[in-house]
Amino acid sequence: MLMNEPRAQALMEEQQFAALVATAPENVTYTSGYWAMSQWIRRGPQAYAVHPAAGHGAPCIIAATGAMDLVADQDPPVKEIHRYGYFVIEVDPEATLDERDARVHELSNTEDEGDPVAALVNVLRARGLDRERIGIDEYGIPPPYLAKLREALPKTVFVPAWEVFRQIRAIKTPEEVRRLRASAQIAEKSIAAALTVARADVTERDLAVAFHETTIREGALPVLACIGTGPRSALPNAQPTDRRLVPGDVIRFDVGGRYRHYRADIARIATLGEPSAKVKRYHHAIRAGMMRAIEAMKPGARCADIFNIAMETARKEGLPHYQRNHVGHGIGLDGYDPPNLTPTSKEVLEEGMVLCVETPYYELGFAGLQVEDTVAVGKDGPISLMATSSELRVV
Amino acid sequence: MLMNEPRAQALMEEQQFAALVATAPENVTYTSGYWAMSQWIRRGPQAYAVHPAAGHGAPCIIAATGAMDLVADQDPPVKEIHRYGYFVIEVDPEATLDERDARVHELSNTEDEGDPVAALVNVLRARGLDRERIGIDEYGIPPPYLAKLREALPKTVFVPAWEVFRQIRAIKTPEEVRRLRASAQIAEKSIAAALTVARADVTERDLAVAFHETTIREGALPVLACIGTGPRSALPNAQPTDRRLVPGDVIRFDVGGRYRHYRADIARIATLGEPSAKVKRYHHAIRAGMMRAIEAMKPGARCADIFNIAMETARKEGLPHYQRNHVGHGIGLDGYDPPNLTPTSKEVLEEGMVLCVETPYYELGFAGLQVEDTVAVGKDGPISLMATSSELRVV
Repeated sequence: MLMNEPRAQALMEEQQFAALVATAPENVTYTSGYWAMSQWIRRGPQAYAVHPAAGHGAPCIIAATGAMDLVADQDPPVKEIHRYGYFVIEVDPEATLDERDARVHELSNTEDEGDPVAALVNVLRARGLDRERIGIDEYGIPPPYLAKLREALPKTVFVPAWEVFRQIRAIKTPEEVRRLRASAQIAEKSIAAALTVARADVTERDLAVAFHETTIREGALPVLACIGTGPRSALPNAQPTDRRLVPGDVIRFDVGGRYRHYRADIARIATLGEPSAKVKRYHHAIRAGMMRAIEAMKPGARCADIFNIAMETARKEGLPHYQRNHVGHGIGLDGYDPPNLTPTSKEVLEEGMVLCVETPYYELGFAGLQVEDTVAVGKDGPISLMATSSELRVV
Repeated sequence: MLMNEPRAQALMEEQQFAALVATAPENVTYTSGYWAMSQWIRRGPQAYAVHPAAGHGAPCIIAATGAMDLVADQDPPVKEIHRYGYFVIEVDPEATLDERDARVHELSNTEDEGDPVAALVNVLRARGLDRERIGIDEYGIPPPYLAKLREALPKTVFVPAWEVFRQIRAIKTPEEVRRLRASAQIAEKSIAAALTVARADVTERDLAVAFHETTIREGALPVLACIGTGPRSALPNAQPTDRRLVPGDVIRFDVGGRYRHYRADIARIATLGEPSAKVKRYHHAIRAGMMRAIEAMKPGARCADIFNIAMETARKEGLPHYQRNHVGHGIGLDGYDPPNLTPTSKEVLEEGMVLCVETPYYELGFAGLQVEDTVAVGKDGPISLMATSSELRVV
């Protein structure tokens, strides 16, 4: 199970929701375990997961008929499936279907509920949820669909709940932490692979190819690949180009793929040949800032305090003019989950949060330097999910 | 330029829009040429492109301050940039900035307009568009932001325009066709790479790794990789598993990455060793259906007729019970652009459309067979964007 069920129930109670309706891909997967491919790779295809509060019936999934194979193949923990739309999948009359194919056939031959909104209306009515207050994730359902839903169920109070889903997702379950650890470590291996090809005249694209190939081989998919060299390392979102490495270059990685749907976002710095004194001093400063911030992570710590620790340390340790909007953020199915490590945050760390802690520094005409580790908040303090150190590497 | 400017102007006139506001990643990139990374890899980050009708002022881009490096580095054709939010990027006082870095610095130091909606309000007001009818893409702007926009500009009539953007995008510009051709042919090369590793005991994941590695090396990014072998080939959305190839297996690819933001979606079938008579007959039938449908593609042809040609041909050529909801769709920045080749479509082909024409057949307990080519509608008929034949391949 990916979802933090006790937290979902507690937040539904706090919000007086009788159910949550997930509509965006992250929330559908989180709530039901079902990865609705078309929804992840396009905007428009609709899949929903309905998750009632205790006493309001069973959870269910609403998906297109053409996706019943995905549901059967993934066999998510939520077993009640509603389908909509016309799609043909034949059966070989001479074959004995295995369990998976039999399930595809069974699911494909339940009642066609017409369209996603009609199916959602059926599901809410059948559970008596049509006179209740429902939290609906407003990010995945297009406004005209939501309008149709409100029209069909005028007594239901639909409340935007994207932010409530984010709050539930903020505290990770053990399975989520396992995936986040694997995802972060695949990114580390991918950086290592990129650095094995780094030498003079190699391009940023060459580094990116080596990076992504390892991500792919390790079972993840490319998502974020800011790889900048030399002065390009100062571009926060540097996309790999044909620029060729020259001795003395900084190589900045701010990278991470998606492993079993969970994101990575880590950063490391290398130099081609010996780093300058300025690179060494600044890298030491930002790394000290990140490490002190991580040391301070424990349940009850204030995010704003963590921010201040990172900034003060970096300033004291060699980067006196350091300024920054945040020094980290949660991570999960989305690249930015709560909390945010900002100076104005009112958030407090809780056990089970997983954060990317980072202290990037960008200076045009010089370089960009950045370290970023993924760290879980344990009962007694930080639990690093990383396998490598954030030291400056010389290749 | 990616955007079809004459068509955009014509559809704005038809809809009586004084401007279009793009909010979803595909439409922002299409309208302005600016690829807003964070918006492509997450839901939530806001970037907009405003494209006025003739006589209503210059187009512009609204983006986060932290993305000014991307804007400068990409140097999109739209030059007026509005930024929002706090983000720090320093300048080395001893360096002479190159043109790109000088532009990053310049853009980062224009006025901070606060937040994306405030910036959009400023832009519309400055052009006198705040008393006009505006088409706004409702897929990329969260409902609470849209509500705030309507509140700030009560005299503006905002009309949902996702579908209008789709209609503009339906007729490709030459640059779009170039990218779509490259994207389709990278998918073909990736299939060829996967087939070079196909032999008994190799897994579906091994095929997928070889597939994605080639996609990466060719400069594209993985998106769609339905790769099913043996009975799993019958799963329409088959995701690669550890299933090992056995002689006689069908290998079905329904695949395509993203090259310079443009999608591919093609399908090919191979068998490990000699195919059965049934595989040969059915593959011949669906391939004949696809090829006849493609032959009939020309400006003025009705999509419903193309559908019927594909179905009748496949039925006559060996698959008498063939049923299907559609036999193809447009492709572009999105995996499904207009038109759709369905029996009930009222759409008519126009010069410059690019379609994926496909005749998939799924039979549980047997196999899935599918061919899918990408084809542009030329003045005098179909222009294939493929480099390889859709013949059944034996490996």
